[in-house]
Amino acid sequence: MKLLTYQWLTSLLLLLALRGQAQPTQPYPYPPSEVLTIHSKLLNEDRQVYVHCPKVDSANVNQRFPVLYLLDGDNHFQLLAEYVEYLSRPDVLAMPKTIVIGIPNTSRTRDLTPTNSIMNFEGKPDSSSYKGSGGNENFLQFIATELMPRIDKTYQTTSYRIFAGHSFGGLSSLNCLLTHPNLFDAYMAVSPSLWWDREYLLKLTAEKVKTGSTLRKTLFFSDGNEGGVNSFFHKHLLKLEATLAKKKLKGLTYRYNHYPTETHMTEPVVAYFDALRFIFKDWDKHR
Amino acid sequence: MKLLTYQWLTSLLLLLALRGQAQPTQPYPYPPSEVLTIHSKLLNEDRQVYVHCPKVDSANVNQRFPVLYLLDGDNHFQLLAEYVEYLSRPDVLAMPKTIVIGIPNTSRTRDLTPTNSIMNFEGKPDSSSYKGSGGNENFLQFIATELMPRIDKTYQTTSYRIFAGHSFGGLSSLNCLLTHPNLFDAYMAVSPSLWWDREYLLKLTAEKVKTGSTLRKTLFFSDGNEGGVNSFFHKHLLKLEATLAKKKLKGLTYRYNHYPTETHMTEPVVAYFDALRFIFKDWDKHR
Repeated sequence: MKLLTYQWLTSLLLLLALRGQAQPTQPYPYPPSEVLTIHSKLLNEDRQVYVHCPKVDSANVNQRFPVLYLLDGDNHFQLLAEYVEYLSRPDVLAMPKTIVIGIPNTSRTRDLTPTNSIMNFEGKPDSSSYKGSGGNENFLQFIATELMPRIDKTYQTTSYRIFAGHSFGGLSSLNCLLTHPNLFDAYMAVSPSLWWDREYLLKLTAEKVKTGSTLRKTLFFSDGNEGGVNSFFHKHLLKLEATLAKKKLKGLTYRYNHYPTETHMTEPVVAYFDALRFIFKDWDKHR
Repeated sequence: MKLLTYQWLTSLLLLLALRGQAQPTQPYPYPPSEVLTIHSKLLNEDRQVYVHCPKVDSANVNQRFPVLYLLDGDNHFQLLAEYVEYLSRPDVLAMPKTIVIGIPNTSRTRDLTPTNSIMNFEGKPDSSSYKGSGGNENFLQFIATELMPRIDKTYQTTSYRIFAGHSFGGLSSLNCLLTHPNLFDAYMAVSPSLWWDREYLLKLTAEKVKTGSTLRKTLFFSDGNEGGVNSFFHKHLLKLEATLAKKKLKGLTYRYNHYPTETHMTEPVVAYFDALRFIFKDWDKHR
């Protein structure tokens, strides 16, 4: 098991540097997170991931933690790390201590779209933005066969995993639920881009999910005020909810939240909080 | 104007220490915050405050920022620093870049209660918890005459100030609004402990605020599920709202949010977000 040692080294060096000086300010001691670099053969590139580990209790040094894998790590890693840290405090105790893995992008459109398409949300071609799209299956394979084994080897993980994404990241989270449901136990799809490739994901949902079948997963999905209540964006989310309701799945616990006062970019702040609260609503804090 | 130099020094020292080593991990680069120590004559002690400053744009080095003063800095500083950082990003732009000052406690009951009382929320005496209560006026004087001048001298502040508190901190925020309204422009009172000293603050509100008077301030207050909808806690908040409505104040913009699914400790996460969204709902991002 790797220890988070570099922050302590940093602090030591800083103390040495400042020794003897009466300084009115010091750096604020954020609980340490780290950046892990991993070479991906599948993606043919080095990938950095951000890792926030709970502080291990000295009375329970072998404690293991669930893992939340977060897409668009560049945008929301600090937010999720803070939520998890705060909500698992002994005086809050709304969820278990959890490891957060933030995956920043190198080629967002390539990695987070399930099909090759150059059509934008209005159905018009935009090859400059969407050329090279459709690599989500390869990216999910990277997560499953390269990233997850590395994380499980390096940190004190349990087998419980959450997959969280926003926008194209939400599309990826839903795509994973439909195509590799066993990779994660819970899925968050915040404002998933269901418009992608002529509603590809909505069609895949209708096709893949058999009525009355069993899917023992937890799913949270949501949208903000993208285009207003009559927008295609909102209609797509309603359609996803209606499809899931119609399928009468056994074992699937899901919630759809609509945030009419939040934008596409402010919504993740409240949606990710609500998603954590939903996923862990029946968590037994006394076990 | 002071610059945040120590984190950079730290990073430099770290780089020197690691030079030549191929390390798979590095510390995650949190945007720097710092701990400022200030001696208070009024409180007769050294006080630390946590400071998060926006990164100054090199094209606009003289830019000045509003300041959010947060009580219970030990609990919610990182959360507020992250909200402010994220919501002011150029691709989110829901509020201006803002300095966050987190004030951790040394003697919470002394500083955050407006009167000397030993009665707990059930009206029973609890001198071990509440002995020495009633120092809020002195603490507000510390903020006004010792802390604020230091912050304004040290950082690039505008005159726009927000005061944020939870529980006893919410009580302090409301007490400040009633007794020193000019100290801040906007007030957040998340689950204020209105039960304190036989509803002291509710009585003060009824007494101090003249019907039809002018109070050009913004106020957000809220509660969670403390004791359920029939609890005294919730009734107190409803009473505060009813009193404000009845007074027909000119210039006061306020909102009351009730979060029936959140606890006293989970509620601040969503309430502080909603409070920022409310305070800056008419903020002109283009100015």
